[in-house]
Amino acid sequence: MKATDTAGTTLRGKVTCVGLGPGDPDLMSVKADRLVRNASHVAYFRKRGRAGQARSIVDGLLRSDVTEFPMEYPVTTELCFSGDDYKQQLAAFYEHWTAQLLSLCGETDVIVLCEGDPFFYGSFMHLHSRLQGQVEVDIVPGITGMSGCWTATDIPITWGDDVLTVLMATLSEEELTRRATGDDALVIMKMGRNLPRVYRALTSAGRLQDAWLVERGTMPGQRVQRLQEVEGTVPYFSMVLVHGKGRRP
Amino acid sequence: MKATDTAGTTLRGKVTCVGLGPGDPDLMSVKADRLVRNASHVAYFRKRGRAGQARSIVDGLLRSDVTEFPMEYPVTTELCFSGDDYKQQLAAFYEHWTAQLLSLCGETDVIVLCEGDPFFYGSFMHLHSRLQGQVEVDIVPGITGMSGCWTATDIPITWGDDVLTVLMATLSEEELTRRATGDDALVIMKMGRNLPRVYRALTSAGRLQDAWLVERGTMPGQRVQRLQEVEGTVPYFSMVLVHGKGRRP
Ligand SMILES: C[S@@+](CC[C@H](N)C(=O)[O-])C[C@H]1O[C@@H](n2cnc3c(N)ncnc32)[C@H](O)[C@@H]1O
Ligand SMILES: C[S@@+](CC[C@H](N)C(=O)[O-])C[C@H]1O[C@@H](n2cnc3c(N)ncnc32)[C@H](O)[C@@H]1O
Repeated sequence: MKATDTAGTTLRGKVTCVGLGPGDPDLMSVKADRLVRNASHVAYFRKRGRAGQARSIVDGLLRSDVTEFPMEYPVTTELCFSGDDYKQQLAAFYEHWTAQLLSLCGETDVIVLCEGDPFFYGSFMHLHSRLQGQVEVDIVPGITGMSGCWTATDIPITWGDDVLTVLMATLSEEELTRRATGDDALVIMKMGRNLPRVYRALTSAGRLQDAWLVERGTMPGQRVQRLQEVEGTVPYFSMVLVHGKGRRP
Repeated sequence: MKATDTAGTTLRGKVTCVGLGPGDPDLMSVKADRLVRNASHVAYFRKRGRAGQARSIVDGLLRSDVTEFPMEYPVTTELCFSGDDYKQQLAAFYEHWTAQLLSLCGETDVIVLCEGDPFFYGSFMHLHSRLQGQVEVDIVPGITGMSGCWTATDIPITWGDDVLTVLMATLSEEELTRRATGDDALVIMKMGRNLPRVYRALTSAGRLQDAWLVERGTMPGQRVQRLQEVEGTVPYFSMVLVHGKGRRP
């Protein structure tokens, strides 16, 4: 069955959002690898003035005649998330690219490149919800950044009945402390400038000595350290891990 | 640098545990696909009398001259996890296969097949810890079963600042209820015969109407239903998902 757009016209193309995994191109799925190599039109998010993480992963894999659509976020620094201005700018940005992808699908298939797994805190979800009912959209899951990172520590993240809690470093210090208290295995993402808050929260929760920081897991420049030993700033593509201690026969 | 065994002998081979992803062989990583196709010796866990999930994923990909080592769990039904007898049997089983793999590594490389991502609630972790310092062990991360399952629901699992909590259905009803209360995105694994307890816990927590059950995500026989509509028993390879409702510009 062909999807139709709001005007009822049958669209020829569809949108496929391809999860590219944590960074190492060898960790892309066989399916992602095939879709990327055959793509005639690719779109990807990036910060203004940056190459873009998703785009970097597929460097050297794209067809020489591929048409590229970098979708540049309208805001370069992280404003306050609850700010109305920020929300409106982002909404307009997502509306714009929803329209662009729909228009492209009148003629051709489009591959959207996403790092990690698209449905796990991925930006594509904001286009996915807007495209619903207007065009066929496929999602190809990928290896998450966190799988790449805990593998890099060479320590299993969860055993037996361990609970795993995944937190965003953008949460308040109070919330981070509350959530980190106890013995859950922890993953804390979106690190960057939020590191000091996470550090304080893990200290309050008594988990600091068990915490690891992984920068650029599976990518060139990968670095694995105990959080206690980290000095200076850390990149956006870094996360904190606290491994579980569950039942081990 | 070559690893040496306890006796100080240099081992020729190494153990590589390969995450195979959620079930669809097309979702194996490029690296996993290559390692599996070239393997001369493969080992994998399975329940007695079963083909084994990991082994099924690679059906048709293995070399015709491959040597296979099915590692059969000593207990077929799930005994009480805290039971001493169960623990001892499992420990002996892991010790046995640790010795077998070490012995094989005297001659050759061995690939251990694991469904999903090995370090995420995978059985290989029990061999991994026992092999430490005795032989080189590599881990190849894979797409988790949960990524395959939330992609199958066609709804993103987490947005913005959502917290994701991953629970095992083997936890007590009280603990499941406590953890499910609130607005975290939820993944509940190891379903099978634990389904009724999970159902009751989600009902108490007021989350039943938002819960989905995915059976055999990305595999032949995949089934996606609202948990409320599930009738009868569900397979071990099924999980419950409650999607997050975070910030959406
Ligand atoms: C918006 S989230 C996207 C997550 C992605 N969809 C996934 O499945 O991993 C971005 C955050 O993911 C984490 N991340 C993703 N890949 C990573 C990697 N290879 N190394 C370290 N952190 C990573 C970082 O914490 C980063 O701030
Ligand atoms: C011992 S855990 C292994 C998890 C695996 N290492 C992973 O990364 O997904 C087994 C549980 O994973 C879940 N599971 C794994 N793959 C699945 C799939 N394709 N569909 C449904 N459930 C799956 C089920 O809940 C099952 O009981």
